[in-house]
Amino acid sequence: MGKIKLGIIGAGRIGRVHAESVTFHIPDAEVVAVADPFITAEGKQFFNSIGINEILNDYHKILENKEINSVLICSSTDTHAEITIAAAKAGKNIFCEKPIDLDIKRIKETLKAVEKSGVKFQVGFNRRFDRNFKALKNSVVDGKIGKVHIVKITSRDPAPPPVEYIRVSGGLFCDMMIHDFDLARFLSGSEVVEVFANGTVLIDDAIGKAGDIDTAIVNLKFANGAIGVIDNSRQAVYGYDQRAEVFGSAGCAAVDNEKPSTAKISTKDSVSEEKPLYFFLERYMQAYAAEVKDFISAIKDGKEVSVGGRDGLNSVIIAKAALKSLKENRPVKISEME
Amino acid sequence: MGKIKLGIIGAGRIGRVHAESVTFHIPDAEVVAVADPFITAEGKQFFNSIGINEILNDYHKILENKEINSVLICSSTDTHAEITIAAAKAGKNIFCEKPIDLDIKRIKETLKAVEKSGVKFQVGFNRRFDRNFKALKNSVVDGKIGKVHIVKITSRDPAPPPVEYIRVSGGLFCDMMIHDFDLARFLSGSEVVEVFANGTVLIDDAIGKAGDIDTAIVNLKFANGAIGVIDNSRQAVYGYDQRAEVFGSAGCAAVDNEKPSTAKISTKDSVSEEKPLYFFLERYMQAYAAEVKDFISAIKDGKEVSVGGRDGLNSVIIAKAALKSLKENRPVKISEME
Amino acid sequence: MGKIKLGIIGAGRIGRVHAESVTFHIPDAEVVAVADPFITAEGKQFFNSIGINEILNDYHKILENKEINSVLICSSTDTHAEITIAAAKAGKNIFCEKPIDLDIKRIKETLKAVEKSGVKFQVGFNRRFDRNFKALKNSVVDGKIGKVHIVKITSRDPAPPPVEYIRVSGGLFCDMMIHDFDLARFLSGSEVVEVFANGTVLIDDAIGKAGDIDTAIVNLKFANGAIGVIDNSRQAVYGYDQRAEVFGSAGCAAVDNEKPSTAKISTKDSVSEEKPLYFFLERYMQAYAAEVKDFISAIKDGKEVSVGGRDGLNSVIIAKAALKSLKENRPVKISEME
Amino acid sequence: MGKIKLGIIGAGRIGRVHAESVTFHIPDAEVVAVADPFITAEGKQFFNSIGINEILNDYHKILENKEINSVLICSSTDTHAEITIAAAKAGKNIFCEKPIDLDIKRIKETLKAVEKSGVKFQVGFNRRFDRNFKALKNSVVDGKIGKVHIVKITSRDPAPPPVEYIRVSGGLFCDMMIHDFDLARFLSGSEVVEVFANGTVLIDDAIGKAGDIDTAIVNLKFANGAIGVIDNSRQAVYGYDQRAEVFGSAGCAAVDNEKPSTAKISTKDSVSEEKPLYFFLERYMQAYAAEVKDFISAIKDGKEVSVGGRDGLNSVIIAKAALKSLKENRPVKISEME
Repeated sequence: MGKIKLGIIGAGRIGRVHAESVTFHIPDAEVVAVADPFITAEGKQFFNSIGINEILNDYHKILENKEINSVLICSSTDTHAEITIAAAKAGKNIFCEKPIDLDIKRIKETLKAVEKSGVKFQVGFNRRFDRNFKALKNSVVDGKIGKVHIVKITSRDPAPPPVEYIRVSGGLFCDMMIHDFDLARFLSGSEVVEVFANGTVLIDDAIGKAGDIDTAIVNLKFANGAIGVIDNSRQAVYGYDQRAEVFGSAGCAAVDNEKPSTAKISTKDSVSEEKPLYFFLERYMQAYAAEVKDFISAIKDGKEVSVGGRDGLNSVIIAKAALKSLKENRPVKISEME
Repeated sequence: MGKIKLGIIGAGRIGRVHAESVTFHIPDAEVVAVADPFITAEGKQFFNSIGINEILNDYHKILENKEINSVLICSSTDTHAEITIAAAKAGKNIFCEKPIDLDIKRIKETLKAVEKSGVKFQVGFNRRFDRNFKALKNSVVDGKIGKVHIVKITSRDPAPPPVEYIRVSGGLFCDMMIHDFDLARFLSGSEVVEVFANGTVLIDDAIGKAGDIDTAIVNLKFANGAIGVIDNSRQAVYGYDQRAEVFGSAGCAAVDNEKPSTAKISTKDSVSEEKPLYFFLERYMQAYAAEVKDFISAIKDGKEVSVGGRDGLNSVIIAKAALKSLKENRPVKISEME
Repeated sequence: MGKIKLGIIGAGRIGRVHAESVTFHIPDAEVVAVADPFITAEGKQFFNSIGINEILNDYHKILENKEINSVLICSSTDTHAEITIAAAKAGKNIFCEKPIDLDIKRIKETLKAVEKSGVKFQVGFNRRFDRNFKALKNSVVDGKIGKVHIVKITSRDPAPPPVEYIRVSGGLFCDMMIHDFDLARFLSGSEVVEVFANGTVLIDDAIGKAGDIDTAIVNLKFANGAIGVIDNSRQAVYGYDQRAEVFGSAGCAAVDNEKPSTAKISTKDSVSEEKPLYFFLERYMQAYAAEVKDFISAIKDGKEVSVGGRDGLNSVIIAKAALKSLKENRPVKISEME
Repeated sequence: MGKIKLGIIGAGRIGRVHAESVTFHIPDAEVVAVADPFITAEGKQFFNSIGINEILNDYHKILENKEINSVLICSSTDTHAEITIAAAKAGKNIFCEKPIDLDIKRIKETLKAVEKSGVKFQVGFNRRFDRNFKALKNSVVDGKIGKVHIVKITSRDPAPPPVEYIRVSGGLFCDMMIHDFDLARFLSGSEVVEVFANGTVLIDDAIGKAGDIDTAIVNLKFANGAIGVIDNSRQAVYGYDQRAEVFGSAGCAAVDNEKPSTAKISTKDSVSEEKPLYFFLERYMQAYAAEVKDFISAIKDGKEVSVGGRDGLNSVIIAKAALKSLKENRPVKISEME
């Protein structure tokens, strides 16, 4: 098999990240076309500059291209399901950004279409591929910390997105904590069976007026008996705060933030280090490349993708359960959602 | 005013710690007598060795001693209320180990008796005096981290106590997490208004059979709008794990464990540091001395004690609410408990 | 100006690193040919795989190629001077791996040829471009630590090179500590004026038999009055140990090793972190790309290279002085060497 | 044997520290008298406050006191030898602050007198008893880092002493680095055989005018083949900087500074920790108590003291050799000094 030929659907920030990863870090693959009805001149120039010259408006053109083996769906969330179903019908392997959709029924239909078609389908939970969270997962898998008792995840953005974005995002649980729900499942090696959510507006009243929260703590119960907790904030002024800890019968493993350098400066005022990397693209650049690489090798080697439809579905179900918990101020069983 | 003359009631582990603190670190005070009906020969010898020679069986002898200004109540929990009431009537200032009692009504009666008598009454929440948690509190008070949004406390014992002790301890929330409830109030500068508890038995089935849990995560809502979470385990095999973090509008402050030394050893196998201090007396030795010193100076200077009856009461109420939450699997408002 | 066309002379490990950097990370440049008389089939395949198809035996072919603007000299040390002189005569800009040569007179002749030709000439002291050492340098330049008093550098390889290599390497000072001499000049912002060397054989007698040492501490005096020290070992079993510290009138700045992840694992046996990155290519991958990027932008923008001939010369002079100091067991002035 | 009765000679800062240690932390000993011809009213009050009531002017009174078993010599350096000789003749066990004297011949005479008398004689190298340096030593003794190759010690004071003190101190090597020379011997488990000193005046010209230096780096060669380096500064504006590292065939062990708390504060400006403990008495309080405890137990158990006359002598010889090296700008063999 030669290079896997890819089409990218959606020419925004994350589409460009994947285009660069493929071009510079994945010798086994090649982006041959990009489709986006709203692509700008500047966007075109970007893709041209890295050697991608087929820039289309209509993604169907990509699906019709026989040369193209697989697609990376990087468009806005509300289009993921439709494009996935169409791509599956066209027999393309699919890498889809999270979330698949904000509607559980729609996700299930989408997964059914994927299953029927037999194509590969991977969901963009990039954190599983971060070198730190991978090391944490390995410490669990290797048995170094024994049976998992407690999973703790901290995830705080450096600054909130625009309120207009928040309004269509599905809210903090579906847009932001969804990564942590997936990470909790990944680290615990088990499914979440019940959630209880505390959530509040402490950063910006406009977020509250848009119907969302900006600060939350969610309690989790897992099928394997472990318990967990996730805390989120839309604004950590010191940078992108991404930490996790797994505590078990034989010990505890924890990962800390990444920093621009290891420099430590001692003066008469303080001993200070650098702040965590501020921007998510910078923080997870390595992880974005690794997840697409993993997708490509699943195709080449004919093996299962490592983050599949069930992962995409279950994280949304947990997010919806958290939202229900918040609204009704009671623990919500995942089984209630189905 | 000369030295404050103290009587210690209860000659067990914590009674001895306080006796040593007073003798060696508090020049303004002096222990003149110890009372314990079950004191051993070895116990007598200990107190003699540090110059305390009046060893009594009956604590009333201490209360009758006109020379004695104040008492440290270090007996078993079920005797705290009775002795406190008697000491208050006898006009002695009182330092009482936590919890005051396991029954809220009984605590209220006790506090009424104290109030009526006008004596000083301090509760033994030693962690407030630990150099680390004090530094954390200071970062909040100094405004360094802005308005408090999230309080996180991790408290894990190195090993569970005997099941016989667990049976009479009031359970994990009243015996162990009570320290964290107080710390949460201290760090947030606010009162807890609602709790939701996850709790389970993952370490030892015998603990479950004794009607208790050994692993728990509790969500908190505070009156000032902040939210918080506490996780407890009865067994962290790597040592006594005592950490906390306060996140706010202007930053985040965190404190880590204390270690026997700063040594870091790099070999072909690993880069390793020392484990956290294992034993609570070692970990909090400085805090135990500081809290009694603070009590003595409140007496000498005629100022308010820094940890009073309300602190002792409210922490038990929160613990009881957590227990109710666990049993009923729902968030419980503190106002429901009163 | 379009892309800068490059020829790489020397197809070994470092030649390949630069080829990859240019191909994947430097959009402004392009490798059009590689020359190496000893290139293997596997080597050819490597360069082909990243799109470099003109593979030559004779480097003169590169110099004759009018399209080629600049060369990266990555061949063995004994050929650097000859190729540099020829390239300068051919009017190519030159990036030359360190050291320029092991003979000071020969280096001076080489630099004279470069100067006469007017081409750019950069020496491959990659560490100046490492994010950590750059942060350290910045703390000096920004005045954060005041006037420099003490510079300390630790540089320890994970394992010694083959004795055959050591025999032709010029010895520990010219082959290994030369990087640290350059770093000392860089961090202090001053020239070394005197050295005193302790050196010994503690790791492998075969190294001693080959006429070299494997462990050394070298004291430095700088023109600006600061003093410094470098320690080297050919074998740090825990990995590649690369640290530095600058102490000054207003504080101290230090940089630590890079690690594969931030994971910290606490068990009953220890609290352990990951070991430093083991392999120099992994440790300095970012720095290798950054130095060539810097060379390219010096060409494009017509500015001075940031690491020039004087840097290449002076580091060798210091190394030679250190060797003299070791042999004569006395401090040696740099002025004695000229 | 009952309590060891002690006399303290010299009522200054360090005399008071030892008086407190004995009173509060060493149940096996008791200070019965203090002698100091210059003791102030405030000094008397201090000793009285901790129960020491016999305050004398003339130290001979202490030597004549049959009840007194041992003396702690805490007077100014120029009186150490005379008092030690007198105390030895009087049959008192002796704990003497460092240095024994600034004159090597005088030290030898002193040690001869001690040896003849058969009393215990311990020198006050407190750092050997610091929990961090002990942990470092243990990592060497336990074989964790294999055969010692390199010893590195950093020792920087927070601020220089008054120039008047510097004038009579014997200079940086005899007054300050002497601790590090002893530590180097302790950590390497070997004797220093050659030194080379760089030293300069970078902090205060007045120090230079007083004939001393304020910044120094000293290279060491040990009898066991290891090499080492010590750096000293009279002024680290960020606090008392006391670190060390031992590198060997099987790894590296390092100890870092002690801090007032583990607090870490992240804001939009920085991530900062507390500065190292500023004051040497605070930093080494535990070590001061431990060294006297060790002296007392050597007496009680009839065993060798752990830091004896040879340690006191050799550290001064190394300091003198360093001074000679600095003056003559050449490496000086220890054997030259005898």
